[in-house]
Amino acid sequence: MDQFECLACGPIASREPDSPSFCPACAEPLFLVPAARSCGKTIHEDLPLALERFADFLPLDAIDPGLSLGEGATPLVRLERTGASMGLSAVYAKNEAQNPTGSFKDRGTAVAVQKAVSLGFKRIGTVSTGNMAASTAAYGARAGLETFVLLKEGTAVTSLKAAGIYGSRLIAVEGDYGSLFRASLDVGKRLGIWFMNSIDPYRMEGYKLTAFEIYLQMGRRSPRFLFVPVSSGGHLLGLMRAFEDLEREKLITTTPTFVGVQARGCSPLAAAFAAGLERYERPTEVRTIAHAISNPTPPAGNAVLRLIRDRKGLLLAVTDEEMLEAQRQLAGAEGLFCQPESATTLAALKHLAAAGRITENSGEAVLVLTGSGFKTPRLLESLPFEVHKIPLSGLESCLSRLIR
Amino acid sequence: MDQFECLACGPIASREPDSPSFCPACAEPLFLVPAARSCGKTIHEDLPLALERFADFLPLDAIDPGLSLGEGATPLVRLERTGASMGLSAVYAKNEAQNPTGSFKDRGTAVAVQKAVSLGFKRIGTVSTGNMAASTAAYGARAGLETFVLLKEGTAVTSLKAAGIYGSRLIAVEGDYGSLFRASLDVGKRLGIWFMNSIDPYRMEGYKLTAFEIYLQMGRRSPRFLFVPVSSGGHLLGLMRAFEDLEREKLITTTPTFVGVQARGCSPLAAAFAAGLERYERPTEVRTIAHAISNPTPPAGNAVLRLIRDRKGLLLAVTDEEMLEAQRQLAGAEGLFCQPESATTLAALKHLAAAGRITENSGEAVLVLTGSGFKTPRLLESLPFEVHKIPLSGLESCLSRLIR
Repeated sequence: MDQFECLACGPIASREPDSPSFCPACAEPLFLVPAARSCGKTIHEDLPLALERFADFLPLDAIDPGLSLGEGATPLVRLERTGASMGLSAVYAKNEAQNPTGSFKDRGTAVAVQKAVSLGFKRIGTVSTGNMAASTAAYGARAGLETFVLLKEGTAVTSLKAAGIYGSRLIAVEGDYGSLFRASLDVGKRLGIWFMNSIDPYRMEGYKLTAFEIYLQMGRRSPRFLFVPVSSGGHLLGLMRAFEDLEREKLITTTPTFVGVQARGCSPLAAAFAAGLERYERPTEVRTIAHAISNPTPPAGNAVLRLIRDRKGLLLAVTDEEMLEAQRQLAGAEGLFCQPESATTLAALKHLAAAGRITENSGEAVLVLTGSGFKTPRLLESLPFEVHKIPLSGLESCLSRLIR
Repeated sequence: MDQFECLACGPIASREPDSPSFCPACAEPLFLVPAARSCGKTIHEDLPLALERFADFLPLDAIDPGLSLGEGATPLVRLERTGASMGLSAVYAKNEAQNPTGSFKDRGTAVAVQKAVSLGFKRIGTVSTGNMAASTAAYGARAGLETFVLLKEGTAVTSLKAAGIYGSRLIAVEGDYGSLFRASLDVGKRLGIWFMNSIDPYRMEGYKLTAFEIYLQMGRRSPRFLFVPVSSGGHLLGLMRAFEDLEREKLITTTPTFVGVQARGCSPLAAAFAAGLERYERPTEVRTIAHAISNPTPPAGNAVLRLIRDRKGLLLAVTDEEMLEAQRQLAGAEGLFCQPESATTLAALKHLAAAGRITENSGEAVLVLTGSGFKTPRLLESLPFEVHKIPLSGLESCLSRLIR
């Protein structure tokens, strides 16, 4: 039986895996207590699946490869040109867009689905505006589980249909997203549907694998800075816990400084951090193109605030214009086309470099690119590109004219 | 200096890397002559990049990791449920959609760009209706090369803009695609723009890596059948040559039976194969949703016909309805959302299984899924999914009603 803890209140007496994942005392999210292994924990680099390589660090008794879609093992790409433009020589992108459904969510879904199947669950679900829907729908299909996707009203039709093609039941729910998030956990518990939402403890365990891979790809050490977009807070907390795991196993001696990034138009955590508050306030207005990180009531928000403060990290907000500019810079200078939400990481690094808070001597900065730009084609269509229309006979003269 | 050969006429006297890649005698495409290595060729499984792992088999003097986007190392996913539905137990998908720009093209672009940069080229280009454009644009941006993308008139705006975000020059050319293909090579040669089109010899070398990975993932042997969509023919020929490389190095004793698949609405090669012709005929009409494999004058077509016949392979055509059904089956039963063009492979396997030509005792079948379904959102929007619209208060009753 897995043990759970609240980072504020400590261990929790007992809890079923699909129970609402909040501490009964303080309502903060719950985490798995890392299992001790008498012989220590090992990374099995020779095994094919990421889940198998890092199995010692996961709360799974066994890994069923039949449930995996080959998630993980994503590249760490050096951004030489981008770094140089800020006077930095060691900037990297961890490209989570290369996961099976094009986002980091697959890391978490893969672990939660392994657990759900091992416990005999027949039904799963999630609450999502996009990436999470596609990921949960895909892994649900892979596992042969009945899958329910609850969509906030107004979700883009492409995201919705992407979940639909995997055969999920699609339900558009009117009303407040935060209330839907909590209602899904309660109702799901009664109906035997495991709603593996953004801060599901097993989902957060999956996010650890991104950090373990960064550790290996950096040559078995921590980068100096890790930049990650923040919405619910689950992704950032999962990454943080991975470095704690590595520290506990004496595999590293230092952990990275975490920089969580929000969209200015919905930045309750960055605002609370800047104001020195212990608890965030719900913003009165939400206005950003960054739908995937636009969460006015992040369920792990206060835990993120506390941990970032304790560990001398940062929470920043960037504007829509800044993230779109960073998105184009990553594509144009590095060949990496990510979602604007992912590009917030570069926009934040640019702020810190411009302010002299990160310099050439500061050490490596890793940007976690959370999702693929190909999944948000609507944003592309509004971009103004020049297309030269010519007849075939005009090809040579057109090319000659365009050559720099 | 690399040596080239025509598969029909033999070695070619001399040729510059960016010269039009056709045999001066018979107009068939040219290939690199595999370099001999006195000490044999080794797979370096411990190296991080796919290009580095298989470097002994590539015509590159060195690999510059700075030009890579982390292409390759894609999963081989077992399709248990899909196989069982046909009475087969060993069906696999090689998911090339997990490449950096979401398609197999990245394999070829990665090698061609390594070569271009090592030879001092400053400009590259391609002719494309979609996947190739995004891939060439991305790697061109990564390498800091000026990149020109020639688009057939009528290319979907999303494909076009996806190339645009990487900073490529976009040129929409009126007129025949086959003529544009050849004109680009001639004009490019004069202007110092290496047009790395679908049958560029270095591009085809890159496609070999997919086959090398399948070989490793199958436990260092060949699968019995390899299914691949066929457009220009370059992808299939690259995969074939990889197994020849492995045979030459005595790493395998048998090669797979290749099954090339076309869309019924544009299937010059499947038609010629069925009619026992040595040369294909241009179809009088082209009508298919499978734009990525809709090529009425495939430049490597006659080479494909000859090799498939010589090696007892097959060329088949499937209808749009069959590929769309297969696309939904892969998503719904396996959690793999690919382009309809990729799903032609499953549609073809279903034909062969239904006809009793592939049975439980035939051995493994690997389907090469060439591109991500997330890149063709337009097709999604016409799919009829049921969305249940409810208020938050109706969540429990709605879910209770939907549960199977």
